[in-house]
Amino acid sequence: MLSEKLNWRYATKKMEAGRVVPDDKVERILEAVRLAPTSSGLQPFDVIVVTNRDLREKLKAAAYGQSQITDGSHVLVFAAWDNYTAERLDRLAEGVAAARGGMSPGIKSNFDGLKARLLPRSADANFEHAARQAYIAFGIGLTAAAFEGVDATPMEGFDPAAVDEILGLRARGLRSVTLMPLGYRAAEGDWLAGLPKARRPRTEMITELA
Amino acid sequence: MLSEKLNWRYATKKMEAGRVVPDDKVERILEAVRLAPTSSGLQPFDVIVVTNRDLREKLKAAAYGQSQITDGSHVLVFAAWDNYTAERLDRLAEGVAAARGGMSPGIKSNFDGLKARLLPRSADANFEHAARQAYIAFGIGLTAAAFEGVDATPMEGFDPAAVDEILGLRARGLRSVTLMPLGYRAAEGDWLAGLPKARRPRTEMITELA
Repeated sequence: MLSEKLNWRYATKKMEAGRVVPDDKVERILEAVRLAPTSSGLQPFDVIVVTNRDLREKLKAAAYGQSQITDGSHVLVFAAWDNYTAERLDRLAEGVAAARGGMSPGIKSNFDGLKARLLPRSADANFEHAARQAYIAFGIGLTAAAFEGVDATPMEGFDPAAVDEILGLRARGLRSVTLMPLGYRAAEGDWLAGLPKARRPRTEMITELA
Repeated sequence: MLSEKLNWRYATKKMEAGRVVPDDKVERILEAVRLAPTSSGLQPFDVIVVTNRDLREKLKAAAYGQSQITDGSHVLVFAAWDNYTAERLDRLAEGVAAARGGMSPGIKSNFDGLKARLLPRSADANFEHAARQAYIAFGIGLTAAAFEGVDATPMEGFDPAAVDEILGLRARGLRSVTLMPLGYRAAEGDWLAGLPKARRPRTEMITELA
């Protein structure tokens, strides 16, 4: 069940070098990311799957040398849209129409409303909003990896400007927000492996108003 | 499997009034939220579980009348920390020490590093960071609801200041970021029910750099 998978996973610090995550597992992780719910169905982020060795060496340097990036086999880079634009929203509307039997007044009015709300906002506010949506999918991607028996390390500790430069993201209107190396926990060398999971107590974190 | 659950769920627009989600299901959803990974294990958000009818009526008004808030039986309010403070980080360090056999130089140095990094930042930057972490748990909570066969509606469409006021959150150093009503999809009256899920195509959303 889900809680069992969430207890199995941990932020793997040392991955087994050279062991490759099979394509079908990576595909199911990506599919979970794609199915993640987002605000108004915007899905305002892209995912870059990096297996290229040279690029991963560069990403590792931009992430202060964290070895999972090269010891694992794949790095998923979650890159949020730098802003909402009319073009992006029109493209989404076309996608919704294609999935639901063609453009309708309802779809059009929904996207007109989104444009009226989102386009006047600052790029920074829209990027922050987009980044939050990426985090929903990031969490579900980490969960999906656990279901596949694949280890994953949620990473915020990197220089986003450097990662954007290495992958050419800014030219695509994207800004990196998180990294998720995929691989398998190494038998030795991981200080966190085997330590009990530390979580805030339920009584402290959760309040009930009945 | 996970993708099946993600395909089953949708942003339920109309819930069956009066049907109550059993406690054990709510508990498992909350446990998944509590187990969600967050940056450095900060878990910088609280969850308020609102079943009280009057409070839910007020929350509905703050959410532009969205009926799931009162037709469902529970509303989970995800409220991010308004800032990181030495007190909050000390409390977390104590929790980690309690889980892992007592305070150690490693735990202390880890939290000293966190303090040095987080405490000088603006409250706004820290709140944004905390909000992103809440979104990870929010996504996993939505996934957990699907595993329980419980419907949930991810909601950003509400007035956060009003919700904070209704629940007294600011005095607790919290700011509401998302709502998650829990209940069961109604047999009728949900315009979204039965419509095919619309998602960006894999080829558009995901790039591979091999």
